[in-house]
Amino acid sequence: MRVEIVAVGTELLLGQIPDTNSQWLGERLAANGIPSYFHQHVGDNHQRIVLAFRTALARSDAMIVCGGLGPTQDDITRAALAEVMNVPLDRDEAIVSTIRSLFESRGRSMPDNNLLQADVPRGATIIPQTRGTAPGLICNVGLKVVYAVPGVPYEMTDMFERAVLPDLLRRQREAGETSVIRSRVLRTWGASESALAEAVADRFDELEKGGRVTIAFLASGIEGIKVRLTARGDDDDHALSMLVHEEEKVRALIEEKLGDIIFATDDQSMEDVVASQLSSRALTLAVAESLTGGLIASRLVNVPGASAWFRGGVVSYASQVKFDVLGVPEGPVVSGPAAEAMARGVRELLKSDIGLSVTGVAGPEEQDGQVPGTVFVGLSVGENLTHSALRLPGDRPRIRAYSAISALDVLRRALERPEYTRAK
Amino acid sequence: MRVEIVAVGTELLLGQIPDTNSQWLGERLAANGIPSYFHQHVGDNHQRIVLAFRTALARSDAMIVCGGLGPTQDDITRAALAEVMNVPLDRDEAIVSTIRSLFESRGRSMPDNNLLQADVPRGATIIPQTRGTAPGLICNVGLKVVYAVPGVPYEMTDMFERAVLPDLLRRQREAGETSVIRSRVLRTWGASESALAEAVADRFDELEKGGRVTIAFLASGIEGIKVRLTARGDDDDHALSMLVHEEEKVRALIEEKLGDIIFATDDQSMEDVVASQLSSRALTLAVAESLTGGLIASRLVNVPGASAWFRGGVVSYASQVKFDVLGVPEGPVVSGPAAEAMARGVRELLKSDIGLSVTGVAGPEEQDGQVPGTVFVGLSVGENLTHSALRLPGDRPRIRAYSAISALDVLRRALERPEYTRAK
Repeated sequence: MRVEIVAVGTELLLGQIPDTNSQWLGERLAANGIPSYFHQHVGDNHQRIVLAFRTALARSDAMIVCGGLGPTQDDITRAALAEVMNVPLDRDEAIVSTIRSLFESRGRSMPDNNLLQADVPRGATIIPQTRGTAPGLICNVGLKVVYAVPGVPYEMTDMFERAVLPDLLRRQREAGETSVIRSRVLRTWGASESALAEAVADRFDELEKGGRVTIAFLASGIEGIKVRLTARGDDDDHALSMLVHEEEKVRALIEEKLGDIIFATDDQSMEDVVASQLSSRALTLAVAESLTGGLIASRLVNVPGASAWFRGGVVSYASQVKFDVLGVPEGPVVSGPAAEAMARGVRELLKSDIGLSVTGVAGPEEQDGQVPGTVFVGLSVGENLTHSALRLPGDRPRIRAYSAISALDVLRRALERPEYTRAK
Repeated sequence: MRVEIVAVGTELLLGQIPDTNSQWLGERLAANGIPSYFHQHVGDNHQRIVLAFRTALARSDAMIVCGGLGPTQDDITRAALAEVMNVPLDRDEAIVSTIRSLFESRGRSMPDNNLLQADVPRGATIIPQTRGTAPGLICNVGLKVVYAVPGVPYEMTDMFERAVLPDLLRRQREAGETSVIRSRVLRTWGASESALAEAVADRFDELEKGGRVTIAFLASGIEGIKVRLTARGDDDDHALSMLVHEEEKVRALIEEKLGDIIFATDDQSMEDVVASQLSSRALTLAVAESLTGGLIASRLVNVPGASAWFRGGVVSYASQVKFDVLGVPEGPVVSGPAAEAMARGVRELLKSDIGLSVTGVAGPEEQDGQVPGTVFVGLSVGENLTHSALRLPGDRPRIRAYSAISALDVLRRALERPEYTRAK
């Protein structure tokens, strides 16, 4: 059962709203082992909707249509479906009275254009509404099936779970397709997509032959490269055991070739990892930021419960603030020693266990004789005062964003060392 | 020139990432008067990509393909394009040496699979990269044209503006489609979409009849509501004069009904406006942030030339930091007086002309007996010490983001008053 999603609405083509429905449906279908190979967006135009539906029905086994079921003149999904099915629209009096009583229960009378929502292509099965007015539809078109659901996410998700998914799974069982999909994302920082691809190249080629497990690389911009493993099994246990086996193999390959670059799995962020390291070691943190200008602190406070381990920070954007507030010695401020002084300074000022700092050149001009992308990360813990020198690519905002995640990665790697178990 | 957007990537079908590229491209095409009637998503599978391309080329005049141009084994857009064009792939040695020198400039050697990015369907024109490694392509397929751009938004947007859009506009002119679209976005903060719609309702209805100028409302989440005016004229002067005339009318209506809520136009951000106010008055700023945790500072340093007026800030996340570092009196820290003390404290510590502060409850729990969304903004200038009390909606990240832009808006409105012309 290959399912195509067709989202209807001119506002999607004009980019006025994001298409969160297709993303949500894609995720739910994948989690249930139902393949989906194509999505489409089409505007509120009868002929083009018909063309999009015919395209979907030609190349997929089933189609989920989102949107265009409302009561206004530009809600024309029902009419387009009737044309594709080659049947007339019949007004369903039961739906009329349901909608009418819904309005009456709110003390209002039903505007006439709501009658449109009671038009049903002949032969279609109705999916009753529980959260709005427009009912959904299940329509057989030759050997294919169409599910029409509203575009309002709150109504769409309810109808999908309650009626569409059970019907799809039943059809899949009847067709003898029972596989289950499970996936895991390994999140990396510090290696290029091509270096990762090369590290697992042999394994990638082997898997290409088998076809039950796949590896994909997702460049997620400032958050590093994601390595996604996907396993298709006969049932949940089977898929999961293949996935666990594969994860072990791929982790070993990456660590062997590229070191400790996998910082998290699935939806976990770099700050989530640092947060759990700090919490479990009962350590508090303060940050001193120059070129990142508060980015690190704002990432950290996004972690629920940050107040348990995050003291705060100083954004020492002007050099004089570094000298006066953080006690950095007068002189060049883009340097390893300046980063160290910033880390110690903020740790003392804010009375935290650990001080983390970043100073560097975001560009476009050089500073202190250093080219843009030159960044120093300082770390102060107990008697230990260290710094790391980095060279980062990109323009101003990108260098800044890379600096923030790089600094957190420096902290993450340090916190993995045993001497950080307790340091005051 | 009807343009179809095809976004390539299994991660889109699986719902692992949102398709922000199609949304962005849809908005840019619409703003330039180029119609787009269909979008597609397709996974990293050769046959299905070919099918999606053929579908797009059958029903549209041009196609923009996003993604699948990277250096890994699952980047197969180039090969699929070559099949649709019915030509071989040639390795372009100039691209090879460009990519190789890019790696060398970072002190790394180029992994071999980057060579894939130098494969070009015979007859295609290359769009040089300025931000990454994979070049883009312009391919003629019969009477249709295909633009292939990377899926990384930062690279895609650059290539679109630099090469794709100019080429599309040139083809549109050559096809005799000469109407010109001009649009202007009025950016507002502090009013709801329905309040704005109501303020300009009569004008909206009048324009609906004419058809050469349109008004649209775009809720852009944490950046407020945008009011977009679009004029379609016979030439540039014609479109622009209609637009200027309309802007004047709409501005007057909004100001009359809702006050000073238009803070900027087009791509100007709230921090851009504040930056130009501070620069032109030769004033310096420091910020003290509690619940926003560095968000305000990180927005401010994104403005080019921020070092001229931005001193830095203190992220006083822990209450003790507010007492010790900023001199806030012991007691409740979510209050107007605490906000004022923070503003004065950071101004004195960082030696700036103006101190701006935010304290409040991001939730989900109450703090100091205040419900989530309770936010106080403090402002310290010369002898003046004031605060504003706000009540903001949403969950934790939303309250935090709203707090940041609201605080900047408080500063923007204050800086419009004459007494801020020079204050030490």
